[in-house]
Amino acid sequence: MAKELTSRSENYSQWYQDLVIKADLAENSAVRGCMVIKPYGYAIWEKMQAQLDKMFKETGHVNAYFPLFIPKSFFSKEASHVEGFAKECAVVTHYRLKHDDETGEIIVDPEAKLEEELIIRPTSETIIWNTYRNWIHSYRDLPLLINQWANVVRWEMRTRLFLRTAEFLWQEGHTAHATMQEAIEETEKIINVYASFAENFMALPVIKGIKSANERFAGAIETYSIEALMQDGKALQSGTSHFLGQNFAKAFDVTFSNKEGKEEYVWATSWGVSTRLMGALVMAHSDDKGLVLPPKLAPVQVVIVPIYQKNEQLAVISAKVDEIIAKLKAKGITVKYDDGDNKKPGWKFAEYELKGVPVRLAMGPRDLENGTVEIARRDTLQKSVVQIEGIENYIENLLDDIQSNIFNKAFEFRKQNTIKVDTYDEFKEALKKGGFIYAHWDGTSETEEKIKAETKATIRCLPLEFEEEEGVCIYSGKPSKRRVIFALAY
Amino acid sequence: MAKELTSRSENYSQWYQDLVIKADLAENSAVRGCMVIKPYGYAIWEKMQAQLDKMFKETGHVNAYFPLFIPKSFFSKEASHVEGFAKECAVVTHYRLKHDDETGEIIVDPEAKLEEELIIRPTSETIIWNTYRNWIHSYRDLPLLINQWANVVRWEMRTRLFLRTAEFLWQEGHTAHATMQEAIEETEKIINVYASFAENFMALPVIKGIKSANERFAGAIETYSIEALMQDGKALQSGTSHFLGQNFAKAFDVTFSNKEGKEEYVWATSWGVSTRLMGALVMAHSDDKGLVLPPKLAPVQVVIVPIYQKNEQLAVISAKVDEIIAKLKAKGITVKYDDGDNKKPGWKFAEYELKGVPVRLAMGPRDLENGTVEIARRDTLQKSVVQIEGIENYIENLLDDIQSNIFNKAFEFRKQNTIKVDTYDEFKEALKKGGFIYAHWDGTSETEEKIKAETKATIRCLPLEFEEEEGVCIYSGKPSKRRVIFALAY
Repeated sequence: MAKELTSRSENYSQWYQDLVIKADLAENSAVRGCMVIKPYGYAIWEKMQAQLDKMFKETGHVNAYFPLFIPKSFFSKEASHVEGFAKECAVVTHYRLKHDDETGEIIVDPEAKLEEELIIRPTSETIIWNTYRNWIHSYRDLPLLINQWANVVRWEMRTRLFLRTAEFLWQEGHTAHATMQEAIEETEKIINVYASFAENFMALPVIKGIKSANERFAGAIETYSIEALMQDGKALQSGTSHFLGQNFAKAFDVTFSNKEGKEEYVWATSWGVSTRLMGALVMAHSDDKGLVLPPKLAPVQVVIVPIYQKNEQLAVISAKVDEIIAKLKAKGITVKYDDGDNKKPGWKFAEYELKGVPVRLAMGPRDLENGTVEIARRDTLQKSVVQIEGIENYIENLLDDIQSNIFNKAFEFRKQNTIKVDTYDEFKEALKKGGFIYAHWDGTSETEEKIKAETKATIRCLPLEFEEEEGVCIYSGKPSKRRVIFALAY
Repeated sequence: MAKELTSRSENYSQWYQDLVIKADLAENSAVRGCMVIKPYGYAIWEKMQAQLDKMFKETGHVNAYFPLFIPKSFFSKEASHVEGFAKECAVVTHYRLKHDDETGEIIVDPEAKLEEELIIRPTSETIIWNTYRNWIHSYRDLPLLINQWANVVRWEMRTRLFLRTAEFLWQEGHTAHATMQEAIEETEKIINVYASFAENFMALPVIKGIKSANERFAGAIETYSIEALMQDGKALQSGTSHFLGQNFAKAFDVTFSNKEGKEEYVWATSWGVSTRLMGALVMAHSDDKGLVLPPKLAPVQVVIVPIYQKNEQLAVISAKVDEIIAKLKAKGITVKYDDGDNKKPGWKFAEYELKGVPVRLAMGPRDLENGTVEIARRDTLQKSVVQIEGIENYIENLLDDIQSNIFNKAFEFRKQNTIKVDTYDEFKEALKKGGFIYAHWDGTSETEEKIKAETKATIRCLPLEFEEEEGVCIYSGKPSKRRVIFALAY
């Protein structure tokens, strides 16, 4: 094989790291904790962005752009917000470099110190709500439904490509509403958009739910999330939507006059998904041979490799391949023809398996004679020989089938790795295997913290879909009316 | 009128500032020199981005993403580069905030000082070429044709919305080549892409040329630019493409083994356009009533306003309008129907003129009877009454006509404001009126600097299209073989 991967069973974490790097998705940069997103990885992210952006616009949102910098004083205005983010901020203190007169080296000019330090945005609620104050006067100015695509910085100490990096790319929606009800509806609308994107495009089954107080966004009244299960049995929070109440409106004095002419504070939501989704995509579906990409997000959906010994053969094969390419492109399918002569077919096969190209066609002289082509699907690695006649319809259906199959496989995996437990012993036993654990909880932060301290497991969410059920907390034995989901998490 | 603008003749600079703010394109933020790009402005930028991105991809480029931060030591590796950017850098020195034990206030944690300061990228040559070192080994790895869409920061002291801001959005292409010739071809290919975008989409006639040494990018061997003329007679540099030679390859030790197996330094280009184009778009075409947007970049191409007194009338008009909207949308035309009842038609007319919507339809009860609609075009402000039958074809042609007309008007304006001068007195006289001034120059930086010091005029470029012509430098009287373009510039 072209580039050897660590296997998942040997070391899942190392497998992930190897795969991200060897499949050319991203790599660590010279700057601590910051990644370089390489063209192949970025092409997947662009597909995610395009689809999400379309979904945001279809639900009435528009894009805008707010400053990278947040004055330190803004940051401090919402108490729990600063508490949540102050420990991991990149701080700009100076605005000029100069030559050191003595050494001749480039140094920070001590005379160019900012009066007030600027924080690189870890999230933009504060600068945006400070701006909204001037945009909102009357109920007629509401709702504001604004999204921004941007980079953000959180100075994490332990970083992993895509999953946790000091700088990452994301979108952050920030909406303003006249009523609490409308803001809550927006929060829920967006978590549904995220779930629909994850399931229909990433082929990633997710559970929608509400976070416990401990796991809530700093400054939110309620945080909704989508939670996905990775192949190692750990959960990955894949998107969050926050109902912020009037917290930021109060911190930044954003009021509006309602229909009765009375001044009220504005209601807020914020919501985001990030390049972390790239990590989820990789970890949910890929295997020991490399990436397995859902066709809807694959930068190349079909790769065609010619098999030949003589150049005359290549010319004939290429002529036939050109016809196939034209038919596939007419269907909107992305095709790459790799007729490069410096690698052997076997090397190419391994390379495109590593890159997760959903469908591979191979065509040799015998195929040409028979009017056939060999098709290999990446998800199952199955091969079959198919007539060239009508190949475009065959592949169109095959891509749909692969998309569904990848989802179904992940769905089945989640099913197999979801368990209900009723005692703390069962709980600890279940954690060894991993997966989603449905258990009763007494609703207190205290219990949640103790369980976390003892087992590292956290409450992923209180699922939106649930059945009321009498039970007792696995830890405290106190009464509980519903199960919540625990898991080890990224 | 809805919002009064300063007129261009009264105060061009104030007119621009008023217009950007009142048309909801952008505003100054609470952070010095940083702007908020508002949804309407951002929608135009998105259209620019989408078209440019398409053109880059059609010419073989791919996107990627590199870190926001550049270690100070990287910055210093290319001597003229750091010289050009050190004076206007945002510098990150710390990575944590904390509560001050005494005052309880949020302060920068002095214990969280970075070992090496990080510069917010003002441009990414250094971090990218440091990365390319690991990506390039053999001639088979070349060319690398990579672009990135990103935010950058240059701590400018005097800022103006879109034209010069501390943070701005842009794209920066960074390509790597095996030969000098190929790198120069790339540099020229891109300046042609930029010119084609400016002329065919922004309706902005531009002159392609080469910068004099004084105006060259810090670290480049040769800088190509496109130069446009604004309505006040000042030039605006609207895009640059740099041939970097082997400067960055040498600074970051990026070599490749060529076909003969010999190690050589890699050849580089870089090129960018930014949100500055938004400023060019506004200043080139707009008038005292507001924006004039070329249809290809207008977020809304057609607005429809109903004229009615009774609600029954509105219902009948709206039914007819719905038919028109469906036909326009089928043509790919973006339409907005403004049937809001809290503003009068006259207010709406003024508002959409301010926003630069290319075509306005107004329909009242009499139009309905006659099967007609009133059409007003934004560029000429002409009105006409047109049959509804076949309206979609009429408007499709009209939008094309408006796009051409806006270009032609700007082209004619440039023609009227371009002059050849042969003496320094003529030159100074011509500068009073502004415009592009073609004059002989002796080719020395010394002369260029003296002219700049005395008149503020700079050499915009040595146009790529020119005729050899014997002459003498307007300043030094020394012999010259070609004219260059001087102007006052933004």
